[in-house]
Amino acid sequence: MRLLAVDTSGPVCGVAVMEDERVLSEFAVQNRNTHSASLMPLVEQSLTCAGRSLADMDALAVVVGPGSFTGVRIGVATVKALAHGSGKPCIPVDALEALAMSTGRMRDGEGLICPIQDARAGQVYAACFAGGERRMEDRAMKLEEFAAEAAGLSPGPLLFTGDGVPVHRERIRELLGGRAVFAEGPFAFLRPSAAGELARTKGTPIDYRNLKEFYLRPPNAEKNKKLLEAMRHE
Amino acid sequence: MRLLAVDTSGPVCGVAVMEDERVLSEFAVQNRNTHSASLMPLVEQSLTCAGRSLADMDALAVVVGPGSFTGVRIGVATVKALAHGSGKPCIPVDALEALAMSTGRMRDGEGLICPIQDARAGQVYAACFAGGERRMEDRAMKLEEFAAEAAGLSPGPLLFTGDGVPVHRERIRELLGGRAVFAEGPFAFLRPSAAGELARTKGTPIDYRNLKEFYLRPPNAEKNKKLLEAMRHE
Repeated sequence: MRLLAVDTSGPVCGVAVMEDERVLSEFAVQNRNTHSASLMPLVEQSLTCAGRSLADMDALAVVVGPGSFTGVRIGVATVKALAHGSGKPCIPVDALEALAMSTGRMRDGEGLICPIQDARAGQVYAACFAGGERRMEDRAMKLEEFAAEAAGLSPGPLLFTGDGVPVHRERIRELLGGRAVFAEGPFAFLRPSAAGELARTKGTPIDYRNLKEFYLRPPNAEKNKKLLEAMRHE
Repeated sequence: MRLLAVDTSGPVCGVAVMEDERVLSEFAVQNRNTHSASLMPLVEQSLTCAGRSLADMDALAVVVGPGSFTGVRIGVATVKALAHGSGKPCIPVDALEALAMSTGRMRDGEGLICPIQDARAGQVYAACFAGGERRMEDRAMKLEEFAAEAAGLSPGPLLFTGDGVPVHRERIRELLGGRAVFAEGPFAFLRPSAAGELARTKGTPIDYRNLKEFYLRPPNAEKNKKLLEAMRHE
């Protein structure tokens, strides 16, 4: 199975071209530029470097969230447009599962993988995985609440990863002491090839018209709109 | 510490730009083109995408082998030229240690990581790592010999990775049964960011004039030359 995998749900703009479990090309960029400017050049270059074209792909995988509202929309909108143009099916991938997969330890039996994204407003988007299986659904919750719940799921180490780690590292150490370990740099961000591997092994190809962003909370813009409306009706 | 990390020692042409443990950009390509054609464009693009220039780097890391003779020379020659031009120090990285690091499981206490490269002539280049420590020096040896020795080093699972796996997978299963496990696609090739992470945490910056390729065997060209000389003197 040939896959193009795209992720712009977090701080990294990532594209991978895969053929079965082989990674033909993988480009991951984390800079100050917007993903909207970086994504299409990376898609083009990764296909060219892999010696493949969009027409060669069997499906287009995309990370649909949870994550940055704008980032998720850029990825989903781009992949929908590519799917419309090429007639290819899409495979949605969960961002937290892809982050867990990116650690390289998804199959390990021991301990728990805890991907966390900084969701601001005092919350994290978080989930838990162990031995390749999901142990907690994606949720938006307080870090303290998540840490307590995760600690109860497994007696072993808790491997934290994701862009929530730099923000909450000290607090995690306070809450969990030596049980908390942290993914190392090359394994602490969402790899597009990890998203592609999940799409290949667990994903369901769907028509791009049914592809949806996956949000755990309404976007700030909607909350603000509701707030404004409520104020107007007072 | 800002690092440019380059690897052309095996089937992948890889470049990463890192700032401390953060990966700013990582490009990895595995296609039929020669590394000599792919490398410099990837170096340029990875620096541009990272928003950095060669002048911003503190050192240039390069995988010096063991691996493909031609591949290793391309990487080392390119990095020497970049170092000459920019006045930056170089950090040599061992290919088998970088392969082990690329699995994401270098710090795990349990089991042994066994990177193997297909060295042809009935041999593999191989080494062993456990809990972040080297347990066997890089050697060129028969697969059977390596499997027996590795199995004696640890009672746990043996995680095989590297381009020797597709060639020798069935034989490894025959020799080691259920104890042998294999790195998954996204973690089964040498990641330039893993080489960069090794350079940053364990490497020693040296002058490029002292940078040397690391070979476990003389190149075929040299062996052929000796053979020809021997024939002429008969």
